[in-house]
Amino acid sequence: MKAPSVSTEPAPVAKPQEREEPIVLRSQDLRGVVTLTLNRPHAFNALSEAMLAAMQREFDAIAEDKSVRAVVVAAEGKAFCAGHDLKEMRAKPSLEYYERLFSQCSEMMLGIQRLPVPVIARVQGVATAAGCQLVAMCDLAVAASTAKFAVSGVNLGLFCSAPGVALSRNILRKVAFEMLVTGEFISAEEAKVRGLINRVVEPEQFDAEVEKIVAAIIAKPRIAVAMGKEFFYRQIELGIASAYEAAAQTMACNMMDEAALEGVQAFIDKRPASWPKHTKSP
Amino acid sequence: MKAPSVSTEPAPVAKPQEREEPIVLRSQDLRGVVTLTLNRPHAFNALSEAMLAAMQREFDAIAEDKSVRAVVVAAEGKAFCAGHDLKEMRAKPSLEYYERLFSQCSEMMLGIQRLPVPVIARVQGVATAAGCQLVAMCDLAVAASTAKFAVSGVNLGLFCSAPGVALSRNILRKVAFEMLVTGEFISAEEAKVRGLINRVVEPEQFDAEVEKIVAAIIAKPRIAVAMGKEFFYRQIELGIASAYEAAAQTMACNMMDEAALEGVQAFIDKRPASWPKHTKSP
Amino acid sequence: MKAPSVSTEPAPVAKPQEREEPIVLRSQDLRGVVTLTLNRPHAFNALSEAMLAAMQREFDAIAEDKSVRAVVVAAEGKAFCAGHDLKEMRAKPSLEYYERLFSQCSEMMLGIQRLPVPVIARVQGVATAAGCQLVAMCDLAVAASTAKFAVSGVNLGLFCSAPGVALSRNILRKVAFEMLVTGEFISAEEAKVRGLINRVVEPEQFDAEVEKIVAAIIAKPRIAVAMGKEFFYRQIELGIASAYEAAAQTMACNMMDEAALEGVQAFIDKRPASWPKHTKSP
Repeated sequence: MKAPSVSTEPAPVAKPQEREEPIVLRSQDLRGVVTLTLNRPHAFNALSEAMLAAMQREFDAIAEDKSVRAVVVAAEGKAFCAGHDLKEMRAKPSLEYYERLFSQCSEMMLGIQRLPVPVIARVQGVATAAGCQLVAMCDLAVAASTAKFAVSGVNLGLFCSAPGVALSRNILRKVAFEMLVTGEFISAEEAKVRGLINRVVEPEQFDAEVEKIVAAIIAKPRIAVAMGKEFFYRQIELGIASAYEAAAQTMACNMMDEAALEGVQAFIDKRPASWPKHTKSP
Repeated sequence: MKAPSVSTEPAPVAKPQEREEPIVLRSQDLRGVVTLTLNRPHAFNALSEAMLAAMQREFDAIAEDKSVRAVVVAAEGKAFCAGHDLKEMRAKPSLEYYERLFSQCSEMMLGIQRLPVPVIARVQGVATAAGCQLVAMCDLAVAASTAKFAVSGVNLGLFCSAPGVALSRNILRKVAFEMLVTGEFISAEEAKVRGLINRVVEPEQFDAEVEKIVAAIIAKPRIAVAMGKEFFYRQIELGIASAYEAAAQTMACNMMDEAALEGVQAFIDKRPASWPKHTKSP
Repeated sequence: MKAPSVSTEPAPVAKPQEREEPIVLRSQDLRGVVTLTLNRPHAFNALSEAMLAAMQREFDAIAEDKSVRAVVVAAEGKAFCAGHDLKEMRAKPSLEYYERLFSQCSEMMLGIQRLPVPVIARVQGVATAAGCQLVAMCDLAVAASTAKFAVSGVNLGLFCSAPGVALSRNILRKVAFEMLVTGEFISAEEAKVRGLINRVVEPEQFDAEVEKIVAAIIAKPRIAVAMGKEFFYRQIELGIASAYEAAAQTMACNMMDEAALEGVQAFIDKRPASWPKHTKSP
């Protein structure tokens, strides 16, 4: 178990109650499950530059850390995430600054797909704009029934174009466009029906449901999940014939790995697989 | 408020009751909401060459008209639109003519996506073949519970290949293929569940529901919606990394616009935004 | 009606009860409806090399046979298909062999899309891994309410990367990823809601429902369906403007065919179409 990271928000921007607190809390259990908790509850966990940088640092570290098996993105307080930090953003009105800021945000978002382990959004409250994008970019998402979702930038005159990149790759076109152009909320139930999230549960079963998904993932060999996730997002952008060509290579490599050879043999022998330790815990 | 346009159907093709009537009715309210009404009720609003040309002229004019904020595509009579005008089409059996006709139709359909304002289909009745395509190509669609949808060309031996372009980009593959190959109708309710339309309402709440969406759109700054719509359809065809790269530029430009700067500032100040007049009405 | 094909499973691999039995049963009715039945019930219809080769041979023959109007892929026994034959696969642990095996499987799967007639999966039981992929690759799928679906390779350490190619093109991203990474089953009802299959019916109405779809297909001219299916999968991988350009050509060709000219004329004349015999039965 590692020490929580210390991505402290720069003092000038921090509110008194946030000063000295890590802006992103990190914990890792003995099984290699990392929980990253957005920790600006009084700012609705807005994605300030410091928050984006802290998340990026965490993802960079996780990408290199073979002991990690899964990541849960959670949030402190009532809101999950309200998107960009508007006060910070408004204070620096220049094209160059905005391009840099939005690029930084996009890089962090793409970082989620590039991680070799699944990332699960644990959405306990409102997720708006880039906060809704964060949910969409995670591989999986579980929401409490009290959560709700909107890409509401258009209400302020700033169309959620970047969140739309994620949204339109998760849900069908007309629903995505309606959300983007009206800025209106959809419920957690609607979000599940529409495909934005995987599961919606009552608050009292919330953590149990997240744990169910986590447990299902870490029961599998790490390498199979890593190869599978990498390939999933790669093939989705290819024509189907190219995708299948690449799939044959990926699956052949996967099958030659000792975990798969043992897993398949164990299945034939009708016994549990005896997998190398690193696939279970660090 | 502009005068209705005068896209009169050519006399030789017109039925007696349609003669001299505009084939597409146009009205524009003080808020910049244009309603285009297909007006060949006795021909189930079939998309004759004249109808396609009239719609194209309207879209071309709207594309240049900054006073327009939203477009509603509606229809006279019981049917919304029955697709191509089969009598007209059958009368000129040549490959060149058909290529020209289908290209003209495709251009009109693509014109909807290229408009800088959202286009909402108001579907009061049956939408078949290119009529169903018209619904799919609109950015948003509201249907009365009495509407129904089919891509029924295959019943006559003419597979709805062009409507399939729109359909397969709106709804999932197996549902789209089933509709295309069986030619069967789906209900408005099923169309909503499947993502072809946004909302289905009882006839008595129909116009109120269309108005709700229109009102939500025109409450936003015109430029944000225009930038957002253009980007939405552009990014959907890019790989996700390229899409995010383009998104950062688009959002930076959007943010530098006075409407967004004011909208974000107003949000910070907890006051209503004071937007330039052109974002509200002409 | 043709004689059943004789793709006998090679003796060394066959279990006693399967010896001499065709590994894929083929029947064709007078209307040109071919039923291919996976016939390794005791091996859960696993896709051995022999099974893949037998399916490929059937598809190759169907591709050349103008008397065929539709294909139903069915299965003997309790399971629909359990994916690859793990015993056979595990016995030859080499990268080259696995690349060849997975390529062979992908070719067979792509062969379904390349056939000029619709292919309908008749899913009476469990469909897992490449068996679930087989369902996804068929143009249409009808399942009994007792069927269930999983891409469960990850449970053995072999991520279902190739099945994911098909799955992610049929259903939305988060649902597909959840199935792939958890390996868990979804019910037939859930599969329908999510778009993986077209219809789910009680066992007693199962064959009647398959017949309904078959009857709807063979009532259409063969050429229209063939042109439409070919174009459907081609256009889906193009940008929308290119897709529409290609659609205009396809529809013009389709319209110039005698079946469409007659079908449209018959519609105008309010009489049934008198289509050339080959569109109905051989």
